[in-house]
Amino acid sequence: MQNFNYSIPTKVYFGKGQIKKLSKISQFGTKVLMVYGGGSIKGNGIYDKAAAVLRESGVSFFELSGVDPNPRIETVALGAKLCKEKEIDAVLAIGGGSTIDCAKMIAAAAKYDGDPWDLVLDGSKIKDALPIVTILTLAATGSEMDGFAVISDMDKNDKLDTASELIKPAFSILDPKFTYSVSQKQTAAGTADIMSHVFEVYFTREKDAFLQARMCEAVLKTCIKYGPAAMENPEDYDARANLMWASSLAINGLLSYGSDVQWCVHPMEHELSAFYDITHGVGLAILTPVWMEYVLSEATIDKFVEFGINVWGIDAEREPRQIAEESIDRTRAFFAQLGLPRTLADVGIGEENLSKMADKLDGLFTDTYIPLTGNEVLEIYRRAL
Amino acid sequence: MQNFNYSIPTKVYFGKGQIKKLSKISQFGTKVLMVYGGGSIKGNGIYDKAAAVLRESGVSFFELSGVDPNPRIETVALGAKLCKEKEIDAVLAIGGGSTIDCAKMIAAAAKYDGDPWDLVLDGSKIKDALPIVTILTLAATGSEMDGFAVISDMDKNDKLDTASELIKPAFSILDPKFTYSVSQKQTAAGTADIMSHVFEVYFTREKDAFLQARMCEAVLKTCIKYGPAAMENPEDYDARANLMWASSLAINGLLSYGSDVQWCVHPMEHELSAFYDITHGVGLAILTPVWMEYVLSEATIDKFVEFGINVWGIDAEREPRQIAEESIDRTRAFFAQLGLPRTLADVGIGEENLSKMADKLDGLFTDTYIPLTGNEVLEIYRRAL
Repeated sequence: MQNFNYSIPTKVYFGKGQIKKLSKISQFGTKVLMVYGGGSIKGNGIYDKAAAVLRESGVSFFELSGVDPNPRIETVALGAKLCKEKEIDAVLAIGGGSTIDCAKMIAAAAKYDGDPWDLVLDGSKIKDALPIVTILTLAATGSEMDGFAVISDMDKNDKLDTASELIKPAFSILDPKFTYSVSQKQTAAGTADIMSHVFEVYFTREKDAFLQARMCEAVLKTCIKYGPAAMENPEDYDARANLMWASSLAINGLLSYGSDVQWCVHPMEHELSAFYDITHGVGLAILTPVWMEYVLSEATIDKFVEFGINVWGIDAEREPRQIAEESIDRTRAFFAQLGLPRTLADVGIGEENLSKMADKLDGLFTDTYIPLTGNEVLEIYRRAL
Repeated sequence: MQNFNYSIPTKVYFGKGQIKKLSKISQFGTKVLMVYGGGSIKGNGIYDKAAAVLRESGVSFFELSGVDPNPRIETVALGAKLCKEKEIDAVLAIGGGSTIDCAKMIAAAAKYDGDPWDLVLDGSKIKDALPIVTILTLAATGSEMDGFAVISDMDKNDKLDTASELIKPAFSILDPKFTYSVSQKQTAAGTADIMSHVFEVYFTREKDAFLQARMCEAVLKTCIKYGPAAMENPEDYDARANLMWASSLAINGLLSYGSDVQWCVHPMEHELSAFYDITHGVGLAILTPVWMEYVLSEATIDKFVEFGINVWGIDAEREPRQIAEESIDRTRAFFAQLGLPRTLADVGIGEENLSKMADKLDGLFTDTYIPLTGNEVLEIYRRAL
């Protein structure tokens, strides 16, 4: 097991009716910037509930709405300007990962004098941030409990992730009922996103992070059980609850501490989203099985056998190669069962930009599970066509 | 899944050489009370390393040594008095759960004007505490990352647990090498203690805390793999590392949030230790299989089947009753494999005080996995003879 420094300071108020805990935001001051997306929170009543708790707590709030699914640096800059002008005390995100990521960078940029893009390029430049509070409405990115943010500059086709201890939310409110209105398509994409977060750390060269590997399998099994259940019955509380908690635990560090590995499927997908603005989880579901097939070899077969037996319940008596290949087939079939697209062509992506995307990643994947050159990334993209 | 409020603020510096992070204690001030047990930390060099880091950090320290394995309220009172007299800024525990528990209550009692025993009887009376830092030398109780403390008043044969958010350590240093010198007997008892913490929450009536149940199984499988490995080779780094991290995660809330249940085997064992001063993990290993047999019924068989298949790998095709019974047999056999005593008679306990102990627990176990009257507790004690 590798050394690690564990720090997961975010408090979580989980369950039905926990929105009343939003009153605790008043510990930070009396002026809040509320950040949200397209306005669905007004349709489903979450906005009204949050506004009522804020008012009862003596907290006034300004609003920044219209955060895009792949949040833009322009929105961050706008939010930061608002924070400075209005002397905001805390940033409240209501939404999914995009909204939360945007709110995190607003909170950091509000305490920074230069160009907010600097903080995306280099998280270590974040030296301070306003307190961040989140109300989660989509189980997927885990942004509600981690120190990551992904921000896009569509002018440059750049979608980059940044990280800082200082942008971990102070507290997050996770009410599974708030995800009842998430569409089947988004539920499927969210499930794929959670599973991909686990795959990025489960497939590690560290062989002795046994506890972490078994916890990874716990999260994967949860997604496999409850992803389809939530799609079938969107108001299945326990399905929504298990997926929601899985989303937070998949990426808050719990699974990666002790077995750190550089991610690769996520950055590959970020290129797709930066060029085509597709849903992140959809891109991950397309790339993941192709990446698995690409990295399966004699050197990695044991890990895939472990995956096949422990996660998919494949008979341990079978040949290792068969188990490994079936583990990948089962993964692909599961994403198909969720109704997710299987190829890049299915989402309208052709050969046109693949080289450009692969070039951007060339030289970066030196410490991934299996290191990949730009040419190898291009090959994976092509096999996904 | 039940509602929960998640809060695990303790930072953990895990791995080889992490003792240098002890320098971070200087953020709390310049005067530390160092609390430890029988002096083994002087033999194995941990004391010297800690003292060196403290000195380099400009921190002076006072010492309170000789904390007992079942720490006494008198020691807490003595430590609190020292803190007040010397105007201590933080309490540093170096040791296992007993030392850490004692340090926690010293930190709380240092900020309390009444009798420290008040805080053991009622954790909600803890309104403030000095910052607590721990250096762990024994993987067992999980005290390094939780808000619990168990303190004894041997004059009254009382061994009670108390809890408060305010006694969660600020940070803990977990270097698996610091447990190389733990004896086989203590390694075995520690493993049983970790597993018992998991059993107390794994056996819950909450059927939809699926993710938590799978994570419980992850910790149990870790103990089953690495308990014997650490006994066989005390300097097996990965065995010590996995056990150490398992000890923290078993009881820091991660496994119980969402499926809370009242504990019962631990309180039953506390009575044994209060009357006979036996090692906590030994008492747990004796009582656990007997308790399992007692609560196995048609109402609970599904849980035991899940346990048998997922943890012990018992063939799922067999009859449920067979799987359930074998899961208990395997648990008992595992403790025996660790060399732990199997009966109360093996540790010199007879019928003499059983009624008295059971009486003390009568009426308390109303919300345990299976509620138990005092008479039923007595029956479990008797079957363990």
